[in-house]
Amino acid sequence: MSWVDGQPLGGVSVHDRALAYGDGLFETMRVIAGRPRLFERHLARLQAGCERLGIVIEPHAVSQEILAFSRELDDGVAKLIITRGEGLRGYAPAPAAVARRILLGSPVPLYPSEHRAGVTLFPCRTRLAEQPALAGLKHLNRLEQVLARSEWSDASYAEGLMQDMSGRVIEGVFSNVFLAKSGRLITPSLERCGVAGVMRAELIERAGQAGIPVAAEDVWLEQLLSADEVFLCNSLYGIWPVTELGAHRWPHGPLTRKLQALISDLSSSA
Amino acid sequence: MSWVDGQPLGGVSVHDRALAYGDGLFETMRVIAGRPRLFERHLARLQAGCERLGIVIEPHAVSQEILAFSRELDDGVAKLIITRGEGLRGYAPAPAAVARRILLGSPVPLYPSEHRAGVTLFPCRTRLAEQPALAGLKHLNRLEQVLARSEWSDASYAEGLMQDMSGRVIEGVFSNVFLAKSGRLITPSLERCGVAGVMRAELIERAGQAGIPVAAEDVWLEQLLSADEVFLCNSLYGIWPVTELGAHRWPHGPLTRKLQALISDLSSSA
Repeated sequence: MSWVDGQPLGGVSVHDRALAYGDGLFETMRVIAGRPRLFERHLARLQAGCERLGIVIEPHAVSQEILAFSRELDDGVAKLIITRGEGLRGYAPAPAAVARRILLGSPVPLYPSEHRAGVTLFPCRTRLAEQPALAGLKHLNRLEQVLARSEWSDASYAEGLMQDMSGRVIEGVFSNVFLAKSGRLITPSLERCGVAGVMRAELIERAGQAGIPVAAEDVWLEQLLSADEVFLCNSLYGIWPVTELGAHRWPHGPLTRKLQALISDLSSSA
Repeated sequence: MSWVDGQPLGGVSVHDRALAYGDGLFETMRVIAGRPRLFERHLARLQAGCERLGIVIEPHAVSQEILAFSRELDDGVAKLIITRGEGLRGYAPAPAAVARRILLGSPVPLYPSEHRAGVTLFPCRTRLAEQPALAGLKHLNRLEQVLARSEWSDASYAEGLMQDMSGRVIEGVFSNVFLAKSGRLITPSLERCGVAGVMRAELIERAGQAGIPVAAEDVWLEQLLSADEVFLCNSLYGIWPVTELGAHRWPHGPLTRKLQALISDLSSSA
């Protein structure tokens, strides 16, 4: 199932700037009973991203289109791609360029249910470049993730851990990461690189409401290894505890279990 | 004029990985009398890029297709986009993914002829992130260039100067840069970021053959400012001397003129 600018179409112009330059943003939403989960957060991130990249959209129309698509999809994953539109050649956008919407529907990925009790991380060699102008955005320039994901094919690794060029722990290839230390939650700062996930934002808010201290700050590998607990999150699968990275082991601990319970309303159908 | 996988088509599947992740490479070739200029260099760079990204192409078939397209285009610019092919969701390529070729024809950009005697550079604030895994490649992740190019609209700036995060001078937004100092040519090293241009490679070779010492090394802004001459190059326009950047002035000097003469066979129809 795919729509281009609201029409059921399977193709897009060869002059689209997303094809030429990765000039756009995306959102991947879990649709349950015809409605995208965490929809307000997805919309807010999309709007903030468009503002940072100077892509003009009509938020209300985009929102209505996602909702109509989700009703038709009913259950699955809705991926929205916003592109800066068409341009012939050259990096400067055509003055008349109009942002394009692409909506793609797909089934929910079949992750093993044991992942909710613990996963093994692959230590990616591919590092994330530090680029504050793009940090946090879910933009379409994803070659680093493509290279990192190609480093392993052994299905016993559920995800890969990515560090920045300086060695800071940043995120998974398609997840954010949290660590628990002495009853406190820490998630890596995404000021220099990384994608600010919608589930990460939701967890920060819910943990705060539950009285769990939570902070976004620089995290180095030694801190990760000395954490009491480590877990991953994204908007499709919810939370996966990390129980193994190389020779290191972490438990599926109490704080991770508490967070999993705190979002049980979200992950029940994941 | 556009071809997709050898067929005259104006659209591409919404599932193409170039659209989703910028997962591919491109080449922009000046076509004169039905033949791409510096064709062997373009092909060699494309092949090297595909090897680094793990994209499998059939070089002979791709080469024949570009030649056929160029014959039909006759005069203009042929842009080739190679994508990793289709994939539904997720960064791991589908095992059956087949690389896709997109060929786009367009007229030669109308640059003012005075640019050959000197241009003014805009000092871009957008910095290039340092990513050795992608450095040198003409890949499709070009948001940095899009942001940099959006910094100026005043046509008195012909190009913008880009530095890396550490402040090294790297390149123009759509050009490579050379400086001349005491009879020696220096072009920035592209080990950390930047695009290794085809005209840059041609100039390095021709300068060497003409007995002009030439080196690729780290270049800092002070070195650029204290250079005797500065020029830009790319495979469409050949060479533009840089005569102005902020308060700084350089002459359209003898070494730049010599290089322009050395490639007069290439730039005559530019």
